[in-house]
Amino acid sequence: MALDLTTFLSDNAKSMRRSAIRDLLKVANRPEIISFGGGFPNAKTFPVDNLKEIINELLDEKPAQVLQYGSTEGSVALRTQIAKKYEKEGVKVGIDNILITTASQQALDLISRIFLNPGDTVLCGLPSYMGALQAIWSYQGRPVGIRHDEEAEAVVSALCSVGQKPKFIYAIPDFQNPTGVTMDLKRRQEIIDVARKYDLIIIEDSPYKELRYEGESYPTMYSMAPERVVLLGTFSKTFVPGFRLGWVLAPEEIIGRLIVAKQSADLCTPILNQEVAAKYMEKGYYDKNLQTTIDLYRHKRDLMHQYLTEYMPQGVTWTRPEGGLFLLVSMPEGLDAKELFEVAIKENVAFVIGEVFFCDGTGQNTMRLNFSYVSDEDMLEGVKRLGNAIRKLMDSKK
Amino acid sequence: MALDLTTFLSDNAKSMRRSAIRDLLKVANRPEIISFGGGFPNAKTFPVDNLKEIINELLDEKPAQVLQYGSTEGSVALRTQIAKKYEKEGVKVGIDNILITTASQQALDLISRIFLNPGDTVLCGLPSYMGALQAIWSYQGRPVGIRHDEEAEAVVSALCSVGQKPKFIYAIPDFQNPTGVTMDLKRRQEIIDVARKYDLIIIEDSPYKELRYEGESYPTMYSMAPERVVLLGTFSKTFVPGFRLGWVLAPEEIIGRLIVAKQSADLCTPILNQEVAAKYMEKGYYDKNLQTTIDLYRHKRDLMHQYLTEYMPQGVTWTRPEGGLFLLVSMPEGLDAKELFEVAIKENVAFVIGEVFFCDGTGQNTMRLNFSYVSDEDMLEGVKRLGNAIRKLMDSKK
Repeated sequence: MALDLTTFLSDNAKSMRRSAIRDLLKVANRPEIISFGGGFPNAKTFPVDNLKEIINELLDEKPAQVLQYGSTEGSVALRTQIAKKYEKEGVKVGIDNILITTASQQALDLISRIFLNPGDTVLCGLPSYMGALQAIWSYQGRPVGIRHDEEAEAVVSALCSVGQKPKFIYAIPDFQNPTGVTMDLKRRQEIIDVARKYDLIIIEDSPYKELRYEGESYPTMYSMAPERVVLLGTFSKTFVPGFRLGWVLAPEEIIGRLIVAKQSADLCTPILNQEVAAKYMEKGYYDKNLQTTIDLYRHKRDLMHQYLTEYMPQGVTWTRPEGGLFLLVSMPEGLDAKELFEVAIKENVAFVIGEVFFCDGTGQNTMRLNFSYVSDEDMLEGVKRLGNAIRKLMDSKK
Repeated sequence: MALDLTTFLSDNAKSMRRSAIRDLLKVANRPEIISFGGGFPNAKTFPVDNLKEIINELLDEKPAQVLQYGSTEGSVALRTQIAKKYEKEGVKVGIDNILITTASQQALDLISRIFLNPGDTVLCGLPSYMGALQAIWSYQGRPVGIRHDEEAEAVVSALCSVGQKPKFIYAIPDFQNPTGVTMDLKRRQEIIDVARKYDLIIIEDSPYKELRYEGESYPTMYSMAPERVVLLGTFSKTFVPGFRLGWVLAPEEIIGRLIVAKQSADLCTPILNQEVAAKYMEKGYYDKNLQTTIDLYRHKRDLMHQYLTEYMPQGVTWTRPEGGLFLLVSMPEGLDAKELFEVAIKENVAFVIGEVFFCDGTGQNTMRLNFSYVSDEDMLEGVKRLGNAIRKLMDSKK
């Protein structure tokens, strides 16, 4: 007797949405395709020699520790290094304010798990990171979008008036995914003021903050309101993504709840991976390598901007981020990036369709481009191909 | 304004239970304490030299791949090796039947997530693995216990008659945690027959099957009913726990649902860790090291049995498993292992209180002992201390 799965699935499972990004990356995996799709760091930034040195040292010095089970909250050495990193920025945190996660996606999952009941609303950027929307949907939460220039209080107060006060606000204040746009100090303060007034928690997702290529850094929202901000950090963009290491910085009582949730989610994050990252920071490799990464990505962002200027047809616009890995391209209204994708794949170039980041179903004319991953040569060729694809799509609509 | 967390927490969060095991391991972490608590492999079994060799090779050969993001379903190389392992046992599986997880605990979490609605029942061993109970509770599921010798059909039919048909059956057929007891072929067939009759999924959790020290192995329940069994495997007990690697073997449509759930849970399992495990199997190190692990643990189990025989007071009994890492000790009815724990900690010996494995709140007179982790000398001393602690508790009740 074959299984009819539909009779078994939970309401959570029915509410989950498959990642369009990850499916698309599979298509884009074909060697002839130049992909601006994934949020992949450039492999040139991977500190291979440092890693070999550190892994060999750790396996010599304390194999019984780094290969064994570890505590759910994470390595003391790594949490200590992370605390020091914030202290250098002037933010005082103890290691009991830090939970190590199996990268940031797990943090988004655990946070959604401990806060969301089915139907609960979450205030998100419009557009916002697809993986965060997925985590929210997977607990039957309901993301509600707010545009970058929309008044936060108006949106929250409207939601409250219909009994849908958000469970939390999800924000990526620095070089937002997918737009690359940064919240200025005034906007940060506005969001915090609203959160205080309506008693809301803020989730500050901060994977790109250290990857600033020009201009001055703004303070984290955590430093501005440590009593109600949960800050997510990750080693995926500034160290290596394959190690799957991230962290949560939050008030101790929230960390305590997240620890219980993580116990049943995966017991603990890989120990060797954590100890390697700790030693990598301790030896000063993190700061040193971060600087060369910033220099490389600044160059790539500039190049991307130059090539887009040269090869995009008239009517196409894009953001010009001061950091991060992405920019958002907009075609004239009425053109659909899903249709473009079909054309582009034939031209052997790929990107992420923008609408997956818009929880209200808009954004059809947009696409996210990553500029960190491809080589300079591929970037030139890829932008040319993309320009051709857009022209073909435009011509077909005439 | 300080945060009143209780107003924010989800019903899931309220339903979660903190792991008594992991809290207890913290107490047991003090160097003067001999702990039979954790399910820790012996550090002597960690293949440090093999690991150094393989990690250095991979970082030389394909750093850009092993340090980058990977696919959610997991490394093709590792899934291929796992499929080969089953083929050697005569079970034909394709790599599309396999999902790599961030160790087995994640598999338990994802399975509970895609199948359980609040209030759904799950049939579990009485006693059964605490981490599985935690995963079930964390989605507001309701574990219902069945004793090893209880008729499965009677229990399922009684549940169905009150509208509480189990969403799945959770079983650890080989050297069960915490008892060490194994289901014989007849019992396996009985459970499968009931699952087929009532159209139930079976979760076969199989972390210890390869660690058999005597007697003959039974077939996996998966091989007996591949259409409805989801098999969980792990590298934590036969390779290294610190790498956090496990897998799910299941019908493709279930794997498909688990992939979507894993996308939002942690995107992918660490890549280097996966590739190392694949190469470790490919080079034949896995099979070779497994044999020395079995020899070491057989010795330790025999020693544990001998010491318990010598040093336990009259009236104390224990299981004698043919494999695995644990045995369950029972004190005479009326004695409480929680009280014993207080006495034992003063004697500098620790264990896991048995009642955390009993979802019906029974098992107060039991405790789980691990025999894989401690040195031979510590095992002798620890069992002596435990015997003394039990005697003291018995005397205090006279």
